Amino acid sequence: MTITITAFERSPDGGMGLARDTRVRWALEEVGQPYEVRYVAHSAMKEPAHLRLQPFGQIPTYEEGELVLFETGAIILHLAQHHAGLLPDDANARARAIMWMFAAVNSVEPPILELVTVKFVEGDKPWCKERMPLVADRIRHRFGQLSARMGDTEWLDGAFSAGDLMMVSVLLRTKPSGILAEFPNLAAYVARGEARDAYKRAFAAQWAVNAAKPVAS
Amino acid sequence: MTITITAFERSPDGGMGLARDTRVRWALEEVGQPYEVRYVAHSAMKEPAHLRLQPFGQIPTYEEGELVLFETGAIILHLAQHHAGLLPDDANARARAIMWMFAAVNSVEPPILELVTVKFVEGDKPWCKERMPLVADRIRHRFGQLSARMGDTEWLDGAFSAGDLMMVSVLLRTKPSGILAEFPNLAAYVARGEARDAYKRAFAAQWAVNAAKPVAS
Repeated sequence: MTITITAFERSPDGGMGLARDTRVRWALEEVGQPYEVRYVAHSAMKEPAHLRLQPFGQIPTYEEGELVLFETGAIILHLAQHHAGLLPDDANARARAIMWMFAAVNSVEPPILELVTVKFVEGDKPWCKERMPLVADRIRHRFGQLSARMGDTEWLDGAFSAGDLMMVSVLLRTKPSGILAEFPNLAAYVARGEARDAYKRAFAAQWAVNAAKPVAS
Repeated sequence: MTITITAFERSPDGGMGLARDTRVRWALEEVGQPYEVRYVAHSAMKEPAHLRLQPFGQIPTYEEGELVLFETGAIILHLAQHHAGLLPDDANARARAIMWMFAAVNSVEPPILELVTVKFVEGDKPWCKERMPLVADRIRHRFGQLSARMGDTEWLDGAFSAGDLMMVSVLLRTKPSGILAEFPNLAAYVARGEARDAYKRAFAAQWAVNAAKPVAS
């Protein structure tokens, strides 16, 4: 069955690979599944046709026959459960890999999302400048805990898994701010993720669509 | 094998049931699994013994033989995958139930967590009062989208699932602020969740521990 995902017709990040379709593309490349992309214009994101697939008016979505999914984490877990390459065979190791997926989106990403809020949503507010370091420190607090847990290990728990795919994707959002570089073992971990062939193909695919276009507001 | 979870020795919410062990207790009650609780003092949360189980120094954790898990979403999904009662049999419906779990923690909960930040973490800052309505409006935006999707349906997608358990648990955090009551279908949905026998048992279990104690700072 053909797999179709949605992505921004023009990504707000201008091709930096931070839009969440990159995570799904990466997972599809890791498990070796071909896919098609339907590009959604910014003006169409909140229209009924797209909201039927994604009630929050976002990308990506995932269509495979009768199945329609949204939520990057759910899409990647679905792929990981149906194709080899993203989850270990051992039941306990599998549960831990899924645990790291949730840790990435529920424990590590929320303070990073606040950075987006402070910069873009509340960028014109008088408290923006004074608040920024507080938000950055909350990110550093989490990164310090994750850094301590990881030490010098290559991946979070044994072989590369969907947990690493998600954690690397979340962490690399903090490269532009310079925060990631403050934690050398996490920066090296992200670099290992970005060096994977599957990641490179995913990044190139979204870059080909977004790089030639002006950044959307 | 005995299941052991951790919970606050003294919950910061004084027994309102908002600490995340309530979500895991609820799941355990839905699938009919007995469990033991090890209570962790606030002072012990960041100690090495607890950090080995939970690198971010939080509760709950889950121990079952050799398996150690943290992250509420991962624990509930593990329970749902190994016991009947929280996921439908049909493969596509199962994927959608998991999708709603991720939607709860990754799309609906982040703006709610910002409410905690603005009230408790930055409560003494000069911008607190002016920022509060902006944060509340971001919650309302998400709730409006979810409310539109749900309409008058009883649960998110057919029968009650782990997706509902997680979504109800996330939504009920906004009862004290009054925001939930602004969306009557979501308020009714939360009330349906709270009316389940399994939820009542879970709530009562954490209440018995926390209700008699002064609220921790």
